[in-house]
Amino acid sequence: MDNLLQLGKQVLASQPFSKLVGAELTSFSQGRAELTVPVTQKLQQQNGLVHGGVISYAVDNALTFAGGSVLGPEVVTSGYTINYLRPAMGTAIIARAAVIYSSKSRAVCRCEVFSAVDGKENLCAASQGTIAMIGRSSANKA
Amino acid sequence: MDNLLQLGKQVLASQPFSKLVGAELTSFSQGRAELTVPVTQKLQQQNGLVHGGVISYAVDNALTFAGGSVLGPEVVTSGYTINYLRPAMGTAIIARAAVIYSSKSRAVCRCEVFSAVDGKENLCAASQGTIAMIGRSSANKA
Amino acid sequence: MDNLLQLGKQVLASQPFSKLVGAELTSFSQGRAELTVPVTQKLQQQNGLVHGGVISYAVDNALTFAGGSVLGPEVVTSGYTINYLRPAMGTAIIARAAVIYSSKSRAVCRCEVFSAVDGKENLCAASQGTIAMIGRSSANKA
Amino acid sequence: MDNLLQLGKQVLASQPFSKLVGAELTSFSQGRAELTVPVTQKLQQQNGLVHGGVISYAVDNALTFAGGSVLGPEVVTSGYTINYLRPAMGTAIIARAAVIYSSKSRAVCRCEVFSAVDGKENLCAASQGTIAMIGRSSANKA
Repeated sequence: MDNLLQLGKQVLASQPFSKLVGAELTSFSQGRAELTVPVTQKLQQQNGLVHGGVISYAVDNALTFAGGSVLGPEVVTSGYTINYLRPAMGTAIIARAAVIYSSKSRAVCRCEVFSAVDGKENLCAASQGTIAMIGRSSANKA
Repeated sequence: MDNLLQLGKQVLASQPFSKLVGAELTSFSQGRAELTVPVTQKLQQQNGLVHGGVISYAVDNALTFAGGSVLGPEVVTSGYTINYLRPAMGTAIIARAAVIYSSKSRAVCRCEVFSAVDGKENLCAASQGTIAMIGRSSANKA
Repeated sequence: MDNLLQLGKQVLASQPFSKLVGAELTSFSQGRAELTVPVTQKLQQQNGLVHGGVISYAVDNALTFAGGSVLGPEVVTSGYTINYLRPAMGTAIIARAAVIYSSKSRAVCRCEVFSAVDGKENLCAASQGTIAMIGRSSANKA
Repeated sequence: MDNLLQLGKQVLASQPFSKLVGAELTSFSQGRAELTVPVTQKLQQQNGLVHGGVISYAVDNALTFAGGSVLGPEVVTSGYTINYLRPAMGTAIIARAAVIYSSKSRAVCRCEVFSAVDGKENLCAASQGTIAMIGRSSANKA
């Protein structure tokens, strides 16, 4: 396992909420991050689908990892937009984020979320967001 | 407790992920919803702040409840935008959503998220999103 | 006319595209900006309604003025989200933007767009966006 | 010239605001649209760059054409998000939109905007938005 992926896995492991959700960092390289969330009953909404909040969590975190891969570890998510496309179900949720633009202090990333159903992946959400370096943004200051 | 709030609390109680997060529906009326998430250690990210995914979950769900209060229970969140403004900490996260426009099939809502710290509320995120009726949108169809 | 409004009017007058559209800065104060676009035939789309691009222009510019009123004149719009709510028609388009959060380098603003029809205002779009200081963001660097 | 491109050019030509801006439909096929705006002085803001409102116009219209290519001509833009990445200058602005998801009534599209400078294209904005069929959305009803 390369160094960046190992480092990323350590960061994810230090996030109690990510452990609660059960997320795994399954790929992490310069400009790209993939987060996989095995689907369990506790992640559902009232109709047995994966809760939108889980999809949002995965998008938020995948965008941040992708941005952090080019800006460094001291980053925050400034914000993002998400469109839900199809119901999320199956055995796992896979969020793949990639940097489409970066400067010294800011990265704009896109993320697609897929649900793995019967060995097939279905696109279930699409997102675009901005990651900022801490200290160059005020997002981390009260 | 009025009927709408009671109904909303039943819906929330039937969402396993909302139970996992520990969210409570603290206010629910025509066009408005307030979701409160008591802050616990399991909701944190690596720096001891509330994870952005928790804020996103609260926004997603508060928007959906607000939209559902005018469109009826068969709704899905089509999508939303969130801007993180300040780090979320303190004893509770409070998401307040309100409908700013609605038609027969669609409601556009805004949501503000506050963190309760020392008896004070700090605005920590702001969102705008669209809720659609199931069957009039395709968001629930594979 | 106060100094801030006068200054704002000078900035708007120095934007060739704003002159092409025919926009006027009708109110400008700390944290708030109102832009009015008299509706003419040249601003329409194929069905006689005001083109969405005109609404977007008004949102973009009103957000930037609102952000600039607290951050200073050297600002750029980092990005924004817009939801179209009702068709825009009538005699004028009025975009009202307000800062909902600001730090030293960033302001998050909301904007509502109204169309004036028969002496009444109809909400026709709602937006949320981020304004950044030039030099603290990279948005102005190639 | 194929039929779809010819049809699209007629629609664009019937939009007075698109004529005012000087936009041209340079490519149009199932799921994709490319809009080119030759840069002239009248499209600038106060610093000689292309006004953000022009970029927004191009995004709005390219998204709508892309969505319309799969949903049919009776569509409206429900909303979109735009991030500005680099200053827009040069000889032309090129907005390329593509459908990433569509159902019977809704298409979610992405758009990238490039500025052509010295024979090179620079990415200057990125967007994601939703197009809806008229009659299945309320966006066209007052």
